Order: sequence, then C-alpha cells, then structure tokens
Amino acid sequence: MDTNWDCLLLDCRLASLVDNGQPYGRMEEAAIAWKDGLIAYAGPRAELPAAPERLAATVESLHGAWVTPGLIDCHTHLVFAGDRAVEFELRLNGASYEEIARAGGGIVSSVRQTRDASADELLAQSLPRARALLADGVTTIEIKSGYGLDLPSERKMLEVARRIGDELGVGVRTTFLGAHAVPPEFAGRQSAYVDEVCIHMMPQLAAAGLVDAVDAFCEKIGFTPSETRRVLETARGLGLPVKLHADQLSDLHGAALAAEFNGLSADHIEYTSSAGVKAMAQAGTVAVLLPGAFHVLRETRLPPIDALREHGVAMAVASDLNPGTSPLLSLRLAMSMACTLFRLTPEEALRGTTLHAARALGLGDRGRLVRGLRADLAVWNIQHPAELCYWLGGAPASRVYAAGRRLV
Amino acid sequence: MDTNWDCLLLDCRLASLVDNGQPYGRMEEAAIAWKDGLIAYAGPRAELPAAPERLAATVESLHGAWVTPGLIDCHTHLVFAGDRAVEFELRLNGASYEEIARAGGGIVSSVRQTRDASADELLAQSLPRARALLADGVTTIEIKSGYGLDLPSERKMLEVARRIGDELGVGVRTTFLGAHAVPPEFAGRQSAYVDEVCIHMMPQLAAAGLVDAVDAFCEKIGFTPSETRRVLETARGLGLPVKLHADQLSDLHGAALAAEFNGLSADHIEYTSSAGVKAMAQAGTVAVLLPGAFHVLRETRLPPIDALREHGVAMAVASDLNPGTSPLLSLRLAMSMACTLFRLTPEEALRGTTLHAARALGLGDRGRLVRGLRADLAVWNIQHPAELCYWLGGAPASRVYAAGRRLV
Ligand SMILES: [Zn+2]
Ligand SMILES: [Zn+2]
Repeated sequence: MDTNWDCLLLDCRLASLVDNGQPYGRMEEAAIAWKDGLIAYAGPRAELPAAPERLAATVESLHGAWVTPGLIDCHTHLVFAGDRAVEFELRLNGASYEEIARAGGGIVSSVRQTRDASADELLAQSLPRARALLADGVTTIEIKSGYGLDLPSERKMLEVARRIGDELGVGVRTTFLGAHAVPPEFAGRQSAYVDEVCIHMMPQLAAAGLVDAVDAFCEKIGFTPSETRRVLETARGLGLPVKLHADQLSDLHGAALAAEFNGLSADHIEYTSSAGVKAMAQAGTVAVLLPGAFHVLRETRLPPIDALREHGVAMAVASDLNPGTSPLLSLRLAMSMACTLFRLTPEEALRGTTLHAARALGLGDRGRLVRGLRADLAVWNIQHPAELCYWLGGAPASRVYAAGRRLV
Repeated sequence: MDTNWDCLLLDCRLASLVDNGQPYGRMEEAAIAWKDGLIAYAGPRAELPAAPERLAATVESLHGAWVTPGLIDCHTHLVFAGDRAVEFELRLNGASYEEIARAGGGIVSSVRQTRDASADELLAQSLPRARALLADGVTTIEIKSGYGLDLPSERKMLEVARRIGDELGVGVRTTFLGAHAVPPEFAGRQSAYVDEVCIHMMPQLAAAGLVDAVDAFCEKIGFTPSETRRVLETARGLGLPVKLHADQLSDLHGAALAAEFNGLSADHIEYTSSAGVKAMAQAGTVAVLLPGAFHVLRETRLPPIDALREHGVAMAVASDLNPGTSPLLSLRLAMSMACTLFRLTPEEALRGTTLHAARALGLGDRGRLVRGLRADLAVWNIQHPAELCYWLGGAPASRVYAAGRRLV
C-alpha cells in the first residue's frame, strides 16, 4: 500500500455510501487518509497498515465525529446580480404579477442587473452565496448561466462561475442555460433567440472551455419541446452532455426528452408521467429533486418518488439556489425539505447530495468515501447521519475538505 | 442629553419598528448608542449632539449595514436531552406511530432522556442549540419546561434554562409547562397528574423563582379545557402570567380560554375560531405563530391570519424549537416560513420576532430601537430588511449585542 499520506484522520465514523450492507455504508471506529488530493484510505482504524504517525505527515483525532463525502449541489443558479427580496415583499403585500412586472420585477430584473454588473461585481455578489453553501458542507457546486441571455453576459456568468471555484477551492461545474428565458430584445421572436443560442452562443462558449453541460427550461412559460430539442441536438453535435429543467409545472414529456438524449439529469419533474420515469431509468438519467422551489412556490404536486424508486432511477437533491423561486443558501435544508415534503428517507437524501449528485454531473471521481476518489469530505458535529436532514438550520459542519485542502 | 456613552455605531440603517410613518420604522443615515446596557440614542447621524468621539468610548462605522432589534424567540422547548433524529428516520422508512412508540420513541423518549441526564449534561446538550439561535440574531429566548414532568426534573430543566442565560449573556424567560404531557407513572390518572402540577410542582417552582410564566398543552392529545383551566387558575392564584398551546390540531376554544385569563399569548391557533380571535383582541393576548411545526407536521389548516389582522391581534413568530415537531435552529427560518406558508409580510414577520414577541413574554423593555430600552441589537449583511425573510439559510448576522455586550 502506498503510504506517506498527507493527512490521516482517526477516531471517526464514516457514512461512506459504499455498498457494504450497512445503512449509509456506515463504518464505525474508522480512519480516513489522503495523498495528493485523493483518498488513500477509508476503512477500519484497526486495519491501518502501520502506526498512524508513520503513515501521514498530519494525524488528527476526530473524537468520534461523523464524516461524509463532501456534499455536491448539482443544480444552482448562484451567479446573479441583485436579489429579488423586494419583489418577494411586494408579492406578500398583495401585488399582482403584472404589477411586479411593471415595477421591473421577475427574471427580467435579474437579467438586467446581471448584464449591468461587471465581472468583478458579479463575483463579489456571488461569492458569499457559494461560501454559505460551503460552510454547510458543500465541496462541489454546479452553476448555471441563464441571466445573461446574450453572448457576452453568458460568458461573463460562466467565467465568474469558474473564478468562484478558483477563489474558494471548491469544485465548480458550469452549465450553459442560454435557453432559460427569452431576453427582452427578442420578445415575440422566441425561435430567433433559440437560433442565437444554438448558432452563436453555445458553440463559442463551448470553444472557450466554459461549458461542462447544457441545460434548457422546457416549460409552457419557457421553451417548447421542439425548441428544447434543437438546443439538445446542438449540444450533442458539440459533444456536450445535457440536462433539462423538465415537467416542473406541466407534463411536456421533458424527462423523456432528456432521456432520449442520454441526459445526465432531468430536474424538478413534478409532472413527469410513468412513461417519462421509465425512459429515465433506461437511459440512466438522474432525477434531480428541488424541494426549495416546491416550497417557495407552494406547489402541491409531488414528483413521482414511488415510481422513481420502483424503476431504480437515481434521485439527487439540490438547492436550485436562485433569486426568484429558491433563495436557498443551504443544501442541508434542501435535504431536510426532500424528507419532509417529498418523503425521501435521510439516507436517500444523503445519497442525493453525494453519489447521485455526482452522477447528475457526470462525475465519477467523487461522491463516496472510497480509495482513489477525490478527498472531498465534511466532518459533522452529530451523533447520527439522520441529523443532517432532521435539524432545520444550525451549523453542524465542523470541518470541510475539498481535494484534501481544508476550507472550513 | 446624558452622553458619555459606552458605544456608538455610525453609518447604519435602522429598522427601529417605531411608528415613524416608515416601513419597519426605517431610519437611514442613522446612529445608535448605548450606556450601561440601555439604548442612549437611536436616530439620525446628523442630529448627534456632538462629534462622535466626544460622545462615546467606542465609536465604529457599520458601513451602511442594517440594524434591527435583537430577535426574540418567544416559544421554544430548547432544553432537552437526546434528539429524535432516529425516530424521524424510522417514520420516513414507513414505521407507524405504534412501532415508534414500541421502539421507545415519541415524547416519552425525550422525557426519559431528560430525566436521566444530569443538569450539566442537559446544559451541555442544550447550549449549542441556544448558540445557533444567537448566531442568527436572537438575544432573548423563552424556554419551556415540560420534558421532566416531575418536580425534580422540571426544576432541573428550568435551572438549566436560567444557566443558559448566564452562560451566553442572552435574555432567558422561563415558562413552566408541567402540563405538557402525562408522564408514564401517571398513565390513566391524568387528573391526578394535574393535581400534582397544581398542588406541588407549580407552587414550589414559583417559590424558587424559576417560573416567569405558565403554559399548558390544551389539546385532545394533551389536557382537556377543564384541566387546563385548573392549571391557569393555579397560576393566577400564584400571580404568574399565563400562555397556552391552543387550538393546534382542533378547536377546543383554547385561545378564548387564554384570553379569559388575560393570557400573554395563545400559541399555534391553527383551528381558532373568529370568536377566539375576538376574545384575544379584547384581552390583548398575542397570537404566536409557529410555522416550523406546521411545516414538519405537513399541516394544511392555516391560522386565521386575516381575522387576526382585522381584529388587530398582535402576531408573533417563534421557532417552537423542540425535538419532535420542530427541530428548528433558526428564528429567521421561522420568519421565512411565516411569510411563505402563512403569507405574513416580511415586516409583520420582523415585528413578530421583536416588538410582538416581547409582548408575548410580557416584556416592555425590548423589541424596538428606542432610547431607554435594552441595547439588544443585531447587525445584518443585507441591503433590505425583507432579506431577513427572503433567504433560506445563510448567516447574515454580522454582529449581535445583548444589553450592549457583543456576543457575535
Ligand atoms: Zn433551476
Ligand atoms: Zn410548543
């Protein structure tokens, strides 16, 4: 065994999420070590190949704390300028959607402010949100574009997303969501805007190395299935993996469309039919559940959890952090809501923010505590992994490491 | 004007909650100062009576940050031993209430563990929960007994509650909730247990100075209205103010009963009728809304918000922090849920955790930023007070002062 490790943590309990016949892939009286940012050991303390101080430069006791893989937030829109708190307040004071739109509210307001912000301003506004996720145990964040809606502004968003990764040392995966909404200058010319997305924006941003995946908002108030199909075909032509905002408010067979393109994930899916679930199962498309938006919008239609379980579709859970429908700065809170509102078990919720979230991003190098994977981990002040979903609020993460580097 | 202040904070915006014709009692370009733990100045920066450095020993700029009164959590059960995360998990794995009860779950499990814990253990387990509230801007916490259910254990809980106040420097108000549940040794003899509460427990605990108010759980699964009435009569005889867990799951006219005893508050009140609301209005009884339990229990019956507004009943918002139905470690999250689930405005929610929460505890010395009141305040990294309710999670409190002493 290659030793000479960088760091070795003793006296911990692992929720490894490996299939060892235990809930959570639990290992008691365990130890975990890494070298060069990769896990070098995750197993019983008693089976360490030598005395700890001979194995690693740094050796520490965790005094029985629980260790999980670093959490993975696989669906966020966290790069934006401004917020929509005043709009939130207007609505609670009884303003209609028309009044809010006339007052410059809605997604248009995020687009305008994001376009107007410099890259540095956008970074300065977005960093605290990424830091809030990180403090709650997150080590990989997916970040979508989609408030720029023109080439320079979408580029700016994706570049800021990359800079967040560099700045904080967390993993960032970028998703191009040019087909998020139709920008004002294309009002009434939705198809021309889809051309713009497919012919100019996506190829150029992909060529710049800014696009890890492509997404679209397939919905009656978004893009039609045939417009969405054009976006997905363009992505396929560029060799980019795809995912989809699908069937959130109505069943447009978005989940099946994502599956047809071997999509990494179909997200929201409250209205997905059993045919859609079967298509996802066959394609290996992950179901990304977003209970934050469900809560904020006071939706009542639940995603088809039982059908997803029955057909073995992997379920991920994400924050959907965005200024309009999910101003949610805690992935643990999304896990808690997934349990309370969607009736996931705490173990399903944890798989949904580790192993399955990694799959929803096409990442095979993280999401479990296994030798050879990235040393992304969170150490928790808890007595049982179910507490990660049980408590609402609080700050149980006592340490967070990304690629072996301590961030919290 | 008496100057020679201890501390003066400049360049801030106040959400003072005074009636100055502005939302939130807003004051821009403001300053706030205190001396001996009491607010000495809260008003325009320009109207300070002298140059800042001549007024106070410590002068600091807040760079435009918002200041609110320290938040007041007027309904918690935060002193308990153990938690119920495993029970939460069992339930999500499909266990019935009977199975959970057989596995030793439910309130009985909190009672057993609280009885078994030493005072020091109980304090050690409860302090992190109080610290979590505090980090989120809370400077006064109401803490109920009710997991002891015998004289020594109830005394232990109330003493631990007092120690939390001493240890953290936050304000603590104790509430005796002996009539929370019937302990196992009184099974089938509920009325005898009420005798125990009224004849022995309450008088002795009150004599020990441990009881700031008295509460009872008036519900089909709790105590009957006539048993509750005995508890309230005993409290009145002892000169103790009362409050009530009322009409949470059914309408037993609990709110009207609280009002009849000039109760400080009636709490939960999802099923309170308009007659109950009118009685509260006449008695000046505050409505304490507890959206955390509503969320966790997935209730659908909303408290009568419109009727409360119409009759001018003051609405408070609290965490109901407890291990069974509201493991909620953030009062801001309760505010957010009060907006999203109960449709309070953000300003109502903030009044509900400051001015109105103070009234629900019978405290006239805090809850607004006014000269002469306690210098309890929170400084927030936000651009608008509505953000306190808009964001879910995160940690916007940058400073917290209780009686002028900085705690965060
Ligand atoms: Zn989204
Ligand atoms: Zn309660």
